[in-house]
Amino acid sequence: MTETASAVTSLMAAIADVGTDPRRGGYSRPVWSPAEKDLRSWFLQEAHSRGLDTEEDRNGILWAWWDLPAGRRVTSLEASRQGALVTGSHLDSVPGGGAYDGPLGVASALAAVDVLQAREAAGALDRRRPLAVAVFPEEEGSRFGVACLGSRLLAGTIPVERALGLRDAAGITFAEAARAEGLDPAHIGPDPAALARIGQFVELHVEQGRGLNTDEHLSAGAPAIAVGSTILGHGRWRISFHGQGNHAGTTLMSDRCDPMVAAAETVIDVRRLARVQPEARATVGRVEPVPGGTNVIASRVDLWLDVRHPEDEVTAALVEDIWRHAQQAALSEGCTAELTEESLSGTVHFDPQLAASLTEAVRRTAPAAPLLPTGAGHDAGVLAAKVPTGMIYVRNPSGVSHAPEEHVEDDDAVLGVHALADALEDLL
Amino acid sequence: MTETASAVTSLMAAIADVGTDPRRGGYSRPVWSPAEKDLRSWFLQEAHSRGLDTEEDRNGILWAWWDLPAGRRVTSLEASRQGALVTGSHLDSVPGGGAYDGPLGVASALAAVDVLQAREAAGALDRRRPLAVAVFPEEEGSRFGVACLGSRLLAGTIPVERALGLRDAAGITFAEAARAEGLDPAHIGPDPAALARIGQFVELHVEQGRGLNTDEHLSAGAPAIAVGSTILGHGRWRISFHGQGNHAGTTLMSDRCDPMVAAAETVIDVRRLARVQPEARATVGRVEPVPGGTNVIASRVDLWLDVRHPEDEVTAALVEDIWRHAQQAALSEGCTAELTEESLSGTVHFDPQLAASLTEAVRRTAPAAPLLPTGAGHDAGVLAAKVPTGMIYVRNPSGVSHAPEEHVEDDDAVLGVHALADALEDLL
Repeated sequence: MTETASAVTSLMAAIADVGTDPRRGGYSRPVWSPAEKDLRSWFLQEAHSRGLDTEEDRNGILWAWWDLPAGRRVTSLEASRQGALVTGSHLDSVPGGGAYDGPLGVASALAAVDVLQAREAAGALDRRRPLAVAVFPEEEGSRFGVACLGSRLLAGTIPVERALGLRDAAGITFAEAARAEGLDPAHIGPDPAALARIGQFVELHVEQGRGLNTDEHLSAGAPAIAVGSTILGHGRWRISFHGQGNHAGTTLMSDRCDPMVAAAETVIDVRRLARVQPEARATVGRVEPVPGGTNVIASRVDLWLDVRHPEDEVTAALVEDIWRHAQQAALSEGCTAELTEESLSGTVHFDPQLAASLTEAVRRTAPAAPLLPTGAGHDAGVLAAKVPTGMIYVRNPSGVSHAPEEHVEDDDAVLGVHALADALEDLL
Repeated sequence: MTETASAVTSLMAAIADVGTDPRRGGYSRPVWSPAEKDLRSWFLQEAHSRGLDTEEDRNGILWAWWDLPAGRRVTSLEASRQGALVTGSHLDSVPGGGAYDGPLGVASALAAVDVLQAREAAGALDRRRPLAVAVFPEEEGSRFGVACLGSRLLAGTIPVERALGLRDAAGITFAEAARAEGLDPAHIGPDPAALARIGQFVELHVEQGRGLNTDEHLSAGAPAIAVGSTILGHGRWRISFHGQGNHAGTTLMSDRCDPMVAAAETVIDVRRLARVQPEARATVGRVEPVPGGTNVIASRVDLWLDVRHPEDEVTAALVEDIWRHAQQAALSEGCTAELTEESLSGTVHFDPQLAASLTEAVRRTAPAAPLLPTGAGHDAGVLAAKVPTGMIYVRNPSGVSHAPEEHVEDDDAVLGVHALADALEDLL
């Protein structure tokens, strides 16, 4: 173990106070909030202190370049960056999220640069191409509703007009928010030149389920690191139930068209239908009644549905089934319902050749490191449609994520940096 | 009909643009919001233009005094105000509420003063006591959660410490908000001297259900005005379901402790249990998941319950039953539940003698005016525990309230002013 790998723990410690959420616990760092912007500044500063050349592209993605030395470049700087090796993650969080989801990948990338720079200085590394660390905005979709928005824009997998028109809870559009951050909405969108700079993308991320802490993995000597195999197909839908807002005291039970009841029936149906579908996950984590007064029968209830399954046809069939039940629930309450797809991504199979290379490298640090599927979405999953991508997961002993309980042991984080550095070295 | 009564329509028109809510529709005028403060200023100005003497008491209640002329007072001004006749209502609204709930009572009171002043000027009115118009803050409880907070403080029917500690959605306490409005929290609370000035209280209010627009009342010549008989007993409770926040993609359905499911079961139970209880109304109009992210299983869901019934024991038994089911729902989801009573008021029977006097006066304008119970709470209901109070309702052809559809025809509003003026004249 080199000393430099442990930089990941001090990097994580340096941002432990940024964006804490006293009400929910954990962290709330939506994209371009003061907290997320603090983290972006922190990242740029850490990159500069490592001699990396930083830039923000037209979609708000940060890049930090460890270029080949001028003497070793046979082309221009920009040309030499084509097909580079890229690693990184995101700095935004869900509301009340954990400390590691996103930032661990960024901090580990910076620490891996430390390791690799030390190896190069010692003459133990002979690179053929540049390495970049990327930070993607709005990975969680917690502000504008579409997960991995930055990587989707880069890769051109979301219509630009749709992205620009997305609104946050305060009604601010993505275009307006981007402009306020100095981006030009006219230039937001597919960026083939930037994409061409990614030869391969490797993302390190905290494991978000029980993939590395099941009974079998918790035994002594169990691996703290895994390599990604697949990402579950994942979609988000909004169901709006429209009823008749009215006075809670004067309106007889028999005179009501209460969309809250239809929404509640749907929450129950979502759980029931997902439970009988092996491997499916379906969640309602966000519900917004309008107007939302205690003494007011709601006139509308919006409910957000998150559905995931390894087989895309099963996801589609499950949502279809939920939607049929939701319409029925609305009808029996004298309400109407409306379905809007907010995002949909098929199941991702990471590049097998890259996964094999990552596995070989990672096992030098963590000999039993398994190949692991995940239910969580990632920028690596979006980029996988365009370039070879792979993922490295670090054990989360709590088995909990998107919540304050999410955790990574310092020793495991250091192991993760070694695994990432070795994997990157093999690819450089 | 006197010309002056029609002032009510121009008074209402003058505030039609204050506090409109583009998102919800209708009006959002929580207490001490810019909108409600605009209305308070408007009221003070309209009172001054009628020669009324205005003041704000230590609980933030506005008073506008039409005193006896100095020559007709046998005591000091302050002593002459003891046992006065008081009318009025409130200016705050529920989120996305209608235009009439509250403001109609205030505007009608001002227009009734016009009518009575004209009658006095014509020598047709010989008063024995002053008339005051009062405006009560936070009638809806839409900001601090307790309805009729101003009148409860005046009457001493809420513990002061509890009132001061109530928090709005931004975490601001009632004490802090009151101080920001120039009130001294140390002086907030029971105000026997102010209460002693109310000999009788008459509140005019828009009818909020189908009390004046059932088939029988909608026939030709049906009355547009009613007199209040009772107010349904009414309580508000908060049920908090605590579960395990987690990632919506990585957490298997079988590994979840999802408080949203328990909350949804409870919404269904509330409706089912209330439906089989004749005369009961039970509503969940407000639900707040924490953290409230689409891709996050909630760690907590707060749900607000509004229950009303003419018999207080039935209200208590119904809430007990709902709570038992909520605990069961929490248990089956691996969650826990917590119940907090936010407010509770027994059924109010308005003073029979005052109701008889109001009925006699009102029927001079609306010959078939019925006595009507209501499911809606009012400051008059709170004050009824301390002084004789009565209410006059004006027809709402939509049958909808606490929603943008709430409506009063101009002609009916003018009729209401006449009825109120006649009723006040008989009592002055």
